[in-house]
Amino acid sequence: MTPFADRLIEATRRLRHPLCVGLDPFADRVPALFGQPGSLDALGSFFSAVLERVAGKVAIVKPQMGLFEPYGPEGVALCGRLCAEAHDHGLMVMLDAKRGDIGTTADGYARAYLGPSPTLHADAITVNPYMGLDTLEPFANAAQSEGKGFAVLVRTSNPGAGDFQDLNVGGAPLWERVAQALRPLADSLTGDTGWSSMMVVAGATWPDEARRLRALLPNAPFLVPGYGAQGAGAVDACAGFVAGPAGREGGVVSSSRAILYPKGADASGTLDEWRQIIDAALDAAIAELRAATAL
Amino acid sequence: MTPFADRLIEATRRLRHPLCVGLDPFADRVPALFGQPGSLDALGSFFSAVLERVAGKVAIVKPQMGLFEPYGPEGVALCGRLCAEAHDHGLMVMLDAKRGDIGTTADGYARAYLGPSPTLHADAITVNPYMGLDTLEPFANAAQSEGKGFAVLVRTSNPGAGDFQDLNVGGAPLWERVAQALRPLADSLTGDTGWSSMMVVAGATWPDEARRLRALLPNAPFLVPGYGAQGAGAVDACAGFVAGPAGREGGVVSSSRAILYPKGADASGTLDEWRQIIDAALDAAIAELRAATAL
Repeated sequence: MTPFADRLIEATRRLRHPLCVGLDPFADRVPALFGQPGSLDALGSFFSAVLERVAGKVAIVKPQMGLFEPYGPEGVALCGRLCAEAHDHGLMVMLDAKRGDIGTTADGYARAYLGPSPTLHADAITVNPYMGLDTLEPFANAAQSEGKGFAVLVRTSNPGAGDFQDLNVGGAPLWERVAQALRPLADSLTGDTGWSSMMVVAGATWPDEARRLRALLPNAPFLVPGYGAQGAGAVDACAGFVAGPAGREGGVVSSSRAILYPKGADASGTLDEWRQIIDAALDAAIAELRAATAL
Repeated sequence: MTPFADRLIEATRRLRHPLCVGLDPFADRVPALFGQPGSLDALGSFFSAVLERVAGKVAIVKPQMGLFEPYGPEGVALCGRLCAEAHDHGLMVMLDAKRGDIGTTADGYARAYLGPSPTLHADAITVNPYMGLDTLEPFANAAQSEGKGFAVLVRTSNPGAGDFQDLNVGGAPLWERVAQALRPLADSLTGDTGWSSMMVVAGATWPDEARRLRALLPNAPFLVPGYGAQGAGAVDACAGFVAGPAGREGGVVSSSRAILYPKGADASGTLDEWRQIIDAALDAAIAELRAATAL
């Protein structure tokens, strides 16, 4: 079985860009042409149409579990259906669920989303390290036995990210200590591409820190959120990337709202008009990231 | 609307013990009398029967979301149904989901489980602080506007808890810095009982640390996991409690497996025999905690 890291990095090399499309359901921004505004049916039709546009153009999509859960079990079921549709389109899936717990509960999350026999089938999941390295073991096991991956929160991009992540631990901020502690795990999950199936979440709004994080974890692909709507540009988002066979590489850069809900896409146009607007937003992000990662 | 903290603490005063019953689904340990072993139907019947035994005897139950999620949307739906049944029995619900994310996603989790109009209705939820204080705001807002609560992971009880929580930050471990940073939030959510609707998770296997945590956060009720199966005794579990009008008080102590799956309860007995075994396990835990919290 091909390791998650190799599947991901080979796809980004083939496509020559690291764009990941975030699937963030904001029901009030879904165009009326997809159905009753605010309904789960409309959200489902909308994301099915998004996945059709995205298929073949990006390596991976990232459903935001925390925005499906307010719809209850039906929202979770929709998220699962979209993961299956993404796979049918040849897309990989990073489930952005930021899970983290101990012992049998951590096992439960890994079983639920990475398998074997997951009920909501993702290729990788985002996880929180606060409870300790042992809480990451079930995800590492799924990386080794199922060809799956996981992305550990290290440095996030929100305004309060520094409250704890920047605390001074013997001369270095906490997030650097977390990165250092993760190094053996990253090394143990390295595939043929040289990259690890343990990714790290590296906020796009902190490019200097992305470079330091890259030095600490040379083989952990980055999941860079916050490109587009959260204000970071393509060059900053790729600050932690390194030279590879098809351009600068080293992870994926996620954009959600700028692609799903671009200016003009909420107007009462036709499906064809909507497709053109989405395609343009997608192509613009891809072009920008290709330029930012050209050697 | 009565604050979460006051509802919880008044219930533990009335009952004269802090026991919280964890609802951890382990399908292979559910007695065959509840239905097809391993099935979700059997789990549902089992937990409905557990809630009947628990009703009136404890203040709060704690469903472990990470063990329902492997059953997919149907597992999430069952968890929601059990929360509703718990409320029908007059029990409060702490959803152990350890959520944590930024901005609109944090809002999503708070909406999903605390409301207004939650799809899975809990009184409180466990949350992870790693991403910063701003990520706790939606839960604090739900505490203020909906009378709900939340329990922040500070010091956990798993073997790897110390990997990051014990890192030395200017002479004190990280978990103490997290506790200090939470103080203003805890103070801002204090009710008539003097206790805050911001709880903290305080691992029961570290009683000395529980006392230090109590000094740092004098009004945050503790959610103490790990009593019973994880090896901590009642006296240690209540190490952070302080004198109150009905005994030592200051949070709840959670036990799951020792009450749900006691020795003998998996044998092929009758429903009446099972009830007697569960009642005995429940009464033993209550007696032990009453003794540990007697003034």
